[in-house]
Amino acid sequence: MSLGPVVVLAGGVGAARFLRGLVRVVPPEEIVVIGNTGDDMWWHGLYIAPDLDTVTYWLAGLADEARGWGIRGDTFTAQAALAGLSERSWFQLGDRDLATHLYRTGRLTAGVPLHAVTAELAESLGVRSRILPMSDAPIETRLKTDAGDLHFQEYFVREHFRPAVHEIYWTGLDQAQPAPGIAEALSAARLVLIAPSNPSISIGPIVRVPGMRALLAAARSRTVAISPLIAGRAVKGPTVELMRAQGVRPDAFGVADLYREIAAGFVIDTADVALAPSIAGLGYRIAVRATTLDDSDSASQVAAAALALLRQPAAA
Amino acid sequence: MSLGPVVVLAGGVGAARFLRGLVRVVPPEEIVVIGNTGDDMWWHGLYIAPDLDTVTYWLAGLADEARGWGIRGDTFTAQAALAGLSERSWFQLGDRDLATHLYRTGRLTAGVPLHAVTAELAESLGVRSRILPMSDAPIETRLKTDAGDLHFQEYFVREHFRPAVHEIYWTGLDQAQPAPGIAEALSAARLVLIAPSNPSISIGPIVRVPGMRALLAAARSRTVAISPLIAGRAVKGPTVELMRAQGVRPDAFGVADLYREIAAGFVIDTADVALAPSIAGLGYRIAVRATTLDDSDSASQVAAAALALLRQPAAA
Repeated sequence: MSLGPVVVLAGGVGAARFLRGLVRVVPPEEIVVIGNTGDDMWWHGLYIAPDLDTVTYWLAGLADEARGWGIRGDTFTAQAALAGLSERSWFQLGDRDLATHLYRTGRLTAGVPLHAVTAELAESLGVRSRILPMSDAPIETRLKTDAGDLHFQEYFVREHFRPAVHEIYWTGLDQAQPAPGIAEALSAARLVLIAPSNPSISIGPIVRVPGMRALLAAARSRTVAISPLIAGRAVKGPTVELMRAQGVRPDAFGVADLYREIAAGFVIDTADVALAPSIAGLGYRIAVRATTLDDSDSASQVAAAALALLRQPAAA
Repeated sequence: MSLGPVVVLAGGVGAARFLRGLVRVVPPEEIVVIGNTGDDMWWHGLYIAPDLDTVTYWLAGLADEARGWGIRGDTFTAQAALAGLSERSWFQLGDRDLATHLYRTGRLTAGVPLHAVTAELAESLGVRSRILPMSDAPIETRLKTDAGDLHFQEYFVREHFRPAVHEIYWTGLDQAQPAPGIAEALSAARLVLIAPSNPSISIGPIVRVPGMRALLAAARSRTVAISPLIAGRAVKGPTVELMRAQGVRPDAFGVADLYREIAAGFVIDTADVALAPSIAGLGYRIAVRATTLDDSDSASQVAAAALALLRQPAAA
């Protein structure tokens, strides 16, 4: 086994909850996170990267883990004042959190690429893992819904994912490529993990960055995905609805089917053990664990299972 | 006497202290402020307009009057977090104050011109006077100093106006014109007041906007300036140093000399009564008052004197 990094494809809070366990079984400095930026947006002049921030704050030990976003103990003084000035105040900005957005935006407008700013922020906040955006180029996840053509954050935060979704699409992909460092990390990786994030709008955009699918396919035999669905339900969020909108069967089998060209191992919840034979039929090695990730103990057990899965002799 | 507005050329805190008195002798809704934007800057991705904000906060009754900048009772949570991320944290951003910058920057990046955003902010904060930036175009006050070529805020805030100044210059003037509404306001004004602001870097940039000097000259017979210097000293700030750097005599006479083509009345402090004859020799009518503006009573007395000055019969 090589000494290469463990690379994790990550969305937001689902990935962060998983990473909290992974860092207990893999030294943090050996972990490289490839984060989704399809949810990023410009907000009152600031560049906001919700998934990168969530991963960074959780790995830094700063996250409000109960709430799932932002910084623990943060205040919302600026937010309250902004709500008095603007109707566009539905995206919550904590005061400490604002410093992250100010720093990032200042650096981006000075011409520093997103991957470099992301590394600076992670280092300043004490994160020992490497966090890479999927691309330095702007890529936007958009949804055609009953409430109109929406940015993901408009759908998710402003509309509380209530509108029916007819189509998910992306802008900016044609100008994008994987961020510097991604090809090297995937090539050297001793293991690639697909975090239990939304396959449609968290992992989907990462895989769609031109060139990424080939890099991932080349690492397929070293890649394990963790199902974000348990008995056909997401722990939180509109995973099921968005998979349906993409015509994907909204259960662990559907996720496994989506990833079958880029992953060789799959971790499912004990509630889905009945799906194991059909998922194995797609060519996967399978581990079955409790995957709710409610605490770092259970998250580390899932991480350990994922790490062990491709080391075991092939079943049969 | 016409019913036109009272127009005030304004810098930051000196003008704000004067305006606090003016609104006691002129209905606020009859006042139009033309504010300096030469000190504006981009700061971590946000557009900051310190003088417009100071005037707005004072007229809104929100200002921290003792400190001279920002909002009374504001907190500095984002600022403290930013200082942990960046060495560029010398310009203090209060949390409530940040909402102003967020709103303004969001609107500017959406293509709304500065004069419209300034009006929106003033209205949202309850200001009944009209506040106009001198121009919608970016104009930057820069200083050649012993510590290098600096933006005004670098000189003033970061370097605490300690470096010797050799030259003051402006960028952006060639692309600029007075903001919409200024020509009409000056033409209709029953009185134009030049606030007791720094003539070099507060009033100077306003007068330098192409087209502005002619508009002001046409209103000369209706214009009164209030001296920002008392016995050759400024209440605060580097007024004397910057006048010297421009080769201007750093006292009330020097200020009067600077303004003689655009003002017909001049208010000096009682400490400067000995200068009255030479200032009158420049063609001014003169009022002598205590001009320290320490409270709104004294500010309103100075404002009343300025209002009365051009109504009195010429002093033969």
